[in-house]
Amino acid sequence: MRKKLLLDVDCGVDDAQAIMMALAAPNVQILGITCVHGNTSVENVCKNVLRVLQACSHLEIPVFKGAAMPILGDSGISSGDFHGKDGLGDAPDSKAPGLELVQKENAAIAMIRIVNENPGEVSLVATAPLTNLALAVKMDPSLPSKLKGLYIMGGNTESRGNTTVCGEFNFAVDPEAAYIVLKEYRCPTYLAGWEFTCYNKLTWEFCDEWLAQNTSKARFMKKIFHHSYLAAQTERLQKECVAGSGFISCDSYAVAAAIDDSFIIESDQYPVSVELSGTHTRGMMIVDTVGFLKDAREVCLMRKVDLEKFKQMMMAALQ
Amino acid sequence: MRKKLLLDVDCGVDDAQAIMMALAAPNVQILGITCVHGNTSVENVCKNVLRVLQACSHLEIPVFKGAAMPILGDSGISSGDFHGKDGLGDAPDSKAPGLELVQKENAAIAMIRIVNENPGEVSLVATAPLTNLALAVKMDPSLPSKLKGLYIMGGNTESRGNTTVCGEFNFAVDPEAAYIVLKEYRCPTYLAGWEFTCYNKLTWEFCDEWLAQNTSKARFMKKIFHHSYLAAQTERLQKECVAGSGFISCDSYAVAAAIDDSFIIESDQYPVSVELSGTHTRGMMIVDTVGFLKDAREVCLMRKVDLEKFKQMMMAALQ
Amino acid sequence: MRKKLLLDVDCGVDDAQAIMMALAAPNVQILGITCVHGNTSVENVCKNVLRVLQACSHLEIPVFKGAAMPILGDSGISSGDFHGKDGLGDAPDSKAPGLELVQKENAAIAMIRIVNENPGEVSLVATAPLTNLALAVKMDPSLPSKLKGLYIMGGNTESRGNTTVCGEFNFAVDPEAAYIVLKEYRCPTYLAGWEFTCYNKLTWEFCDEWLAQNTSKARFMKKIFHHSYLAAQTERLQKECVAGSGFISCDSYAVAAAIDDSFIIESDQYPVSVELSGTHTRGMMIVDTVGFLKDAREVCLMRKVDLEKFKQMMMAALQ
Amino acid sequence: MRKKLLLDVDCGVDDAQAIMMALAAPNVQILGITCVHGNTSVENVCKNVLRVLQACSHLEIPVFKGAAMPILGDSGISSGDFHGKDGLGDAPDSKAPGLELVQKENAAIAMIRIVNENPGEVSLVATAPLTNLALAVKMDPSLPSKLKGLYIMGGNTESRGNTTVCGEFNFAVDPEAAYIVLKEYRCPTYLAGWEFTCYNKLTWEFCDEWLAQNTSKARFMKKIFHHSYLAAQTERLQKECVAGSGFISCDSYAVAAAIDDSFIIESDQYPVSVELSGTHTRGMMIVDTVGFLKDAREVCLMRKVDLEKFKQMMMAALQ
Ligand SMILES: [Ca+2]
Ligand SMILES: [Ca+2]
Ligand SMILES: [Ca+2]
Ligand SMILES: [Ca+2]
Repeated sequence: MRKKLLLDVDCGVDDAQAIMMALAAPNVQILGITCVHGNTSVENVCKNVLRVLQACSHLEIPVFKGAAMPILGDSGISSGDFHGKDGLGDAPDSKAPGLELVQKENAAIAMIRIVNENPGEVSLVATAPLTNLALAVKMDPSLPSKLKGLYIMGGNTESRGNTTVCGEFNFAVDPEAAYIVLKEYRCPTYLAGWEFTCYNKLTWEFCDEWLAQNTSKARFMKKIFHHSYLAAQTERLQKECVAGSGFISCDSYAVAAAIDDSFIIESDQYPVSVELSGTHTRGMMIVDTVGFLKDAREVCLMRKVDLEKFKQMMMAALQ
Repeated sequence: MRKKLLLDVDCGVDDAQAIMMALAAPNVQILGITCVHGNTSVENVCKNVLRVLQACSHLEIPVFKGAAMPILGDSGISSGDFHGKDGLGDAPDSKAPGLELVQKENAAIAMIRIVNENPGEVSLVATAPLTNLALAVKMDPSLPSKLKGLYIMGGNTESRGNTTVCGEFNFAVDPEAAYIVLKEYRCPTYLAGWEFTCYNKLTWEFCDEWLAQNTSKARFMKKIFHHSYLAAQTERLQKECVAGSGFISCDSYAVAAAIDDSFIIESDQYPVSVELSGTHTRGMMIVDTVGFLKDAREVCLMRKVDLEKFKQMMMAALQ
Repeated sequence: MRKKLLLDVDCGVDDAQAIMMALAAPNVQILGITCVHGNTSVENVCKNVLRVLQACSHLEIPVFKGAAMPILGDSGISSGDFHGKDGLGDAPDSKAPGLELVQKENAAIAMIRIVNENPGEVSLVATAPLTNLALAVKMDPSLPSKLKGLYIMGGNTESRGNTTVCGEFNFAVDPEAAYIVLKEYRCPTYLAGWEFTCYNKLTWEFCDEWLAQNTSKARFMKKIFHHSYLAAQTERLQKECVAGSGFISCDSYAVAAAIDDSFIIESDQYPVSVELSGTHTRGMMIVDTVGFLKDAREVCLMRKVDLEKFKQMMMAALQ
Repeated sequence: MRKKLLLDVDCGVDDAQAIMMALAAPNVQILGITCVHGNTSVENVCKNVLRVLQACSHLEIPVFKGAAMPILGDSGISSGDFHGKDGLGDAPDSKAPGLELVQKENAAIAMIRIVNENPGEVSLVATAPLTNLALAVKMDPSLPSKLKGLYIMGGNTESRGNTTVCGEFNFAVDPEAAYIVLKEYRCPTYLAGWEFTCYNKLTWEFCDEWLAQNTSKARFMKKIFHHSYLAAQTERLQKECVAGSGFISCDSYAVAAAIDDSFIIESDQYPVSVELSGTHTRGMMIVDTVGFLKDAREVCLMRKVDLEKFKQMMMAALQ
């Protein structure tokens, strides 16, 4: 049986990489892609997803528009245009599909419907601020129990922030959403935190080889990736990387784990939560290694993954 | 044209009083009643609303079940069983309607649908924790612009708490929901705060006269009110009252203002917000009398109302 | 026996008024005046106190320099130059005494010494951010038990801020100090809060009459008061006043209560604390009217005072 | 010239180890030992320091009593009796010196005096909650500029708490003190954080060999260490250790760095602060690796130290 995936994205170049990995995976069916604010406006996110689907000839996959803002409204946190103002490298395409292709159904409502139509079968992969997932569980608290699993790129485990001094972007943009999701999605949950993706980065040499493939998908990626590729070389961005510079396709780790059950080699199982009120720590993930928290939900924190498989999946994504 | 009301309640005895006032008003059409956690569980709230509707022979009004918990989950705040464990004085009725009469549609979804079916015409009256309203605006940010007005019982203006040291019950139970609603419902908004209802209390003599009416509705009210009537005489409850003991039918002020445009005699127009992070002040309403806050939304804070009209509406509610 | 007063000030024109009231009181001995940051820098405060003492021919009273900053350092809150940049109306005096007249001893150390030299006899009057008092009790926890009483101008009781949306100046500038003092000064404590001083304001007509006295002290006051007199007429300042415009000599209420035991006519005895962490409420005084707080210390909150006596003491201050 | 050390301790068995290391160092003069609450009451800390000095025949070193409580009073955090109720393994000594040997001068005042008597020469070593240091700098803001250096054991760098979910003991017990010290001690500052001490632990084999030395000091250590030695083997304590079980003499790293300038081999220089308001993160040290904080002070965070030297200094401490 094919794996059924539902992707929630703020498409971003790294989300594009993750989506293309999922599209290329042999035994995967993508039931839909839900869009949310984050790297850029939710309208741009919808457009970007459609462009990625077009580049991969998969415009039949339904795309849904979700939340335009975090739970508490504007967080004052911006993505800093790392992926360009439009989230996809500011490399426009005159033949890009229009927003009329986006479904009329709200993303959170669609999420609930799709999961209910496929009870126990859907792996939900979230590579964005968790606003849509939070709203969905507030509208239908039974949703998590009907999921096969939840795969998240977000949060951090060693207080090394990339967006605030202690906060990772997806969590820091909507801390309440992250808090709700970690608390209420009581299904098997696998999390690729920021430091994990840094420790498991690929080399720039691999990146060059990856982009040099002679395919239309590789040329598409090279075009949209150019902006962030350059940005990643700046001193500021290199400081954000916990373990030195490298090619960090964050969102792809969450997809890889959802696609391949043997991808995660080592992990930690700890109760987690999200700090909501600190001056410097609002949005930081809390990992309870000792046992201080009561009732906090345990998740699986990825620590070591099969990087050979990862590289193969990355290569396949552009073929 | 009749006024179209949509009521959001955590039916408690005071909500019951407010609903009965609305049902008795001559030019009012109640489009629906949405239920939310608060005085008791959302299931009990649904049951209580159905009992009130039955007592008033209005079971044709659709009842919707909404959020069972605050936005961030259990707040650790309980209503203290002021209205009894079941919210309606622990005075069960063997002929009470069953939950099968509750609509299948989710309360927030129904709210969005009903308002869209009656654009510009609906007065939304909220006498409960604001979870349903918050979810509705997150699912459809255009909702407030389609309302005629919003009438809220909740919040406080002088930091005199009845549930926490500085917090009023409806706001303290779900501070994030109150924050979202005050921020995002950019429609004419009228608020009956806790201190206002205390300063505009009725006498216990009026209460006795009110309950002594020889009608089935008065007998119903007397039965369900017995528990809170006694509780209100305790020392603790009297301390909560800002201006001395009295009969405070809090939720009815919001309904009265929605029914009769001339009910409010004096009011203050100030920017307001909700404190989300204080040790003692989480859930307290912030009133900006001087002009410190930027971008906070102004609401109309009731200060003086037509108490003669109020007494008439109260009397009519049980006739 | 004469009353022994120790004054802690951030001299400000209103502190000047309070000091002059104390100096003019018949049965009062001022053991010292300790200075702290607040309306202006602590250096300016020392200079201002010396000028006031010179104007009253009391340069024999020892003046001590205390904290230059709040406990946690710069709070980012400024006095807005209400009393002028120098705190005394920017009306310099070429014959003003120099800082060499300030004692070498640190203010908090002097406070401890003086109270220990007069055990059970000293009334401490604080009309400024409470940094000095907080440091003194941290250095000598037995200090409060040796005081006769503590008289504070500061804090608010109805969340009506004059400096932040919910905070009074003296508390908002150093919330940790206010917290420590309310918690650890377990001696009889009398507090004149911001709203109290507003409700008990004097008229501008009284003010004019007061300043028109034909004395050198009145001429001195008229000169240093000119700046704040004008500022008080601005729209912004009038909004800060809870009960309409008027002549509010805040700090003088604390001195009047310390001088005359019959000054306070009505008061409330409630547990109080200070909010330290809210977004909008940091620095707000918490008044527990219902009984939510455990272990909070009760203080006497002035509500009604003898305004005729107050006017007499004010008049005498400039004679 | 001999190094002049001033030690601030909450003597604890690990503080005892650190003090004995300093006493044994050839070119070191200990100007005084200031005591503060922490592992046990400040009275017990004074007693424990005197016992250590007696065991090492150095009762001539002056001992000062400091703060009995954190800046904001009881933090609700206890040391969990890791070092026994008396902080020294509950192994009483009938010949222990009495508290009459403690100096009359307050610890913070003594700290200011001693540093002023030895300007530019004193290395201050703090292995306890930082209350005394915070009070000293509030009383004399010029103090840090007169220090040679500050050596701290405390704080954490990867949000791995040993006392709260994200907080290290010395910082979590008095977060405001830690905040003040990190902000205002603008002198060269070297910090041994919790994770650092875990990564640089010694083996239990070394510990056994260390205790087996045939000296009276080793027998003294073996006696007072017995309790914590056993406690360290429990599951809970092992979970606290970031990098597996081992012999972690935390406080000794700060003393070793103060004694020997070549002890620190690798370090990070980052701006740091302390979170004061988080739900889970209050007391956590903030390390700004990327450059988000403005005006935060840089300190030297120890990363790699000369463990051979450390073992030699440890061995010498008991000889
Ligand atoms: Ca993403
Ligand atoms: Ca209600
Ligand atoms: Ca003042
Ligand atoms: Ca220690």
